Amino acid sequence: MTAEVGFSRGLEGVIAAESALTYIDGQQGILAYLGIPIEELTEHSSFEETAFLLLYQKLPKRTELADFKQELLRHRTLPEAVLDVLKRLPRKTAPMALLRTAVSVLGHFDPSPDDVSTATLQAKALKLIVQMATLTAVIGRWRKGLEPIVPNSDLSHAANFLYMLTGRKPTDEAARVFDVALILHADHEFPASTFASSVVASTLSDIYSSVCAALGALKGPLHGGANEQVIKMIAAIGDPARAEPYIKEKLTRKEIIMGFGHRQYKTYDPRARILKHYSEKLAQQAQDPCFFQIEEIVEKTVIEALGSRGIFPNVDFYSGTVYHYLGIEPELYTPIFAISRIVGWAAHMIEYLKENRIFRPTTRYIGPPLGHYTPIEQR
Amino acid sequence: MTAEVGFSRGLEGVIAAESALTYIDGQQGILAYLGIPIEELTEHSSFEETAFLLLYQKLPKRTELADFKQELLRHRTLPEAVLDVLKRLPRKTAPMALLRTAVSVLGHFDPSPDDVSTATLQAKALKLIVQMATLTAVIGRWRKGLEPIVPNSDLSHAANFLYMLTGRKPTDEAARVFDVALILHADHEFPASTFASSVVASTLSDIYSSVCAALGALKGPLHGGANEQVIKMIAAIGDPARAEPYIKEKLTRKEIIMGFGHRQYKTYDPRARILKHYSEKLAQQAQDPCFFQIEEIVEKTVIEALGSRGIFPNVDFYSGTVYHYLGIEPELYTPIFAISRIVGWAAHMIEYLKENRIFRPTTRYIGPPLGHYTPIEQR
Repeated sequence: MTAEVGFSRGLEGVIAAESALTYIDGQQGILAYLGIPIEELTEHSSFEETAFLLLYQKLPKRTELADFKQELLRHRTLPEAVLDVLKRLPRKTAPMALLRTAVSVLGHFDPSPDDVSTATLQAKALKLIVQMATLTAVIGRWRKGLEPIVPNSDLSHAANFLYMLTGRKPTDEAARVFDVALILHADHEFPASTFASSVVASTLSDIYSSVCAALGALKGPLHGGANEQVIKMIAAIGDPARAEPYIKEKLTRKEIIMGFGHRQYKTYDPRARILKHYSEKLAQQAQDPCFFQIEEIVEKTVIEALGSRGIFPNVDFYSGTVYHYLGIEPELYTPIFAISRIVGWAAHMIEYLKENRIFRPTTRYIGPPLGHYTPIEQR
Repeated sequence: MTAEVGFSRGLEGVIAAESALTYIDGQQGILAYLGIPIEELTEHSSFEETAFLLLYQKLPKRTELADFKQELLRHRTLPEAVLDVLKRLPRKTAPMALLRTAVSVLGHFDPSPDDVSTATLQAKALKLIVQMATLTAVIGRWRKGLEPIVPNSDLSHAANFLYMLTGRKPTDEAARVFDVALILHADHEFPASTFASSVVASTLSDIYSSVCAALGALKGPLHGGANEQVIKMIAAIGDPARAEPYIKEKLTRKEIIMGFGHRQYKTYDPRARILKHYSEKLAQQAQDPCFFQIEEIVEKTVIEALGSRGIFPNVDFYSGTVYHYLGIEPELYTPIFAISRIVGWAAHMIEYLKENRIFRPTTRYIGPPLGHYTPIEQR
């Protein structure tokens, strides 16, 4: 047996795998996929290309990208059976739970779900990237009693999602901002969701099982639920004049302020910086600066109080505002996180399986010493 | 940031949590729940009592056990909606995938799925322990086109499961053996399934999400699928006279022999010892010694070759034979593992959440150095 290598609660600082996908420098605030800084990807790339980059560990050539996009288009319509199951579930349960069930159901309609070879997983991942977007749009409408919108094959992945959700073609600007948000969330190394999906995949289980695990983890309020809580806090503040006292009171009561601090970043989250820029642009265009103004004050107040301890805005702080200005309801923020992060989940499991070893850590026993069974009459 | 504490592939030897539930001594072959050796529990306890022991970290008093059993009885019938969804899925997909979907669907019918307080989780766990047993029986019958059997409240959890599966009341002996198998599989510290469910739970996600993750992991052929593969190997050998040459050939080709070796045990798995005893009894009673005889020869041949390297039968080697003699088809062996291990999954998440810290390990970056985006025409 290998010697114990120490105990770090929540596995903080423990290396669980080697990975070529995502580089994070939490001190300098750098995030890069395959060595390409996130700032350059959001400026020059698209979600489709970024998905290819992570799944295949290289930027696509022109024909590869065209083929990849064509395949994405081909899968936009869901199997009828999945919609049929969705309709039988209570409409008002959590969208993330609906997505978890729907992805589990998708697995039943894959003729070879258990094939975990690299090429097959890349193909299945591509299909899930599309189908989870369609599912999220369907769930978003269905919650309001609205019928699904037929996908529009003239639109990019990002634009088509907004179209399927609202029934209106988005402006180029809106589609671009949403594309940027998808790029920014595509991977982030080993948060609980990606880690959970890799643990499941390491048993050589199928991708639907792995993605269900990831969805389950992302659903947790300590993980994917944060941006929904941020926007609800901003809405609760409601007026820029109330922002500073609201936050100062929270700080005095030592309450957690959602959207700040990150186990990896001890400086400004580079994703938050980009989203803040777009959030400001959208606020100006909408001539509705209120939410953005509140966030700026919240940010300033928190950094003044906690910045010296490495507490800065994280990705969840401004992503909610971006989605708010795009007219998306908060209950869909976590599923929207998922339709981007599915790329990272799949990319990590594909990478891990190339040198697979089943995850099987140990626990440190702190229970009673070895003893005996006590008969019921003596308890 | 905490200093890196080393990298052990698959987190082998890494302590991921502290736990009072299960004690394993892999050198001496000891397994105990809350300090009570598994041999004493299988002799004196029941699955119901063992479930209480793990969920509440103590043996129940007489009234507590009576109440617990009463609650278990109360939930044996499934919500109609879950059966309705099951009927819409392809009958021939993996039973573990069906169980994963069904548990995900159960979550939609829980009026407060997101409550993760200890008492609530204990109550939800109890309900899942019963409902997963009913689901597995329903799935087992439905695969063959048979209608569900109404649960029988005169029977113990183990006996009722066999009854719901076959439609016949089992003998006391059969019920007792199945009860023992359920006790033996109830917990085993941090295998991939339990670990995955704790990772999901650490985000404060709901129990259905956590259990879906665990089911997904257990579904993997490197984890829960082993006993099904063992019995298929035994059936393929078919004749005690062929067992030794069959295994020797496999050993020469350095093929893995399922049901042997365990990351925790470097000696005889104590669970395998108990199951071997019952397997022999069942073989005698059935006057059908063939499978048991083959297994004895396989065991002897493997131990002679690999025992000096710590390779001995594990729990999966004899559990399949026990289920075979109980007349259960191999495709249900992994779901049967799940209907016992749900106890451990729930017990660990309840315990972990008492001092929760979200699981968030890191990866060691092995990708390209920080560089730049290459325009598509230059690739």
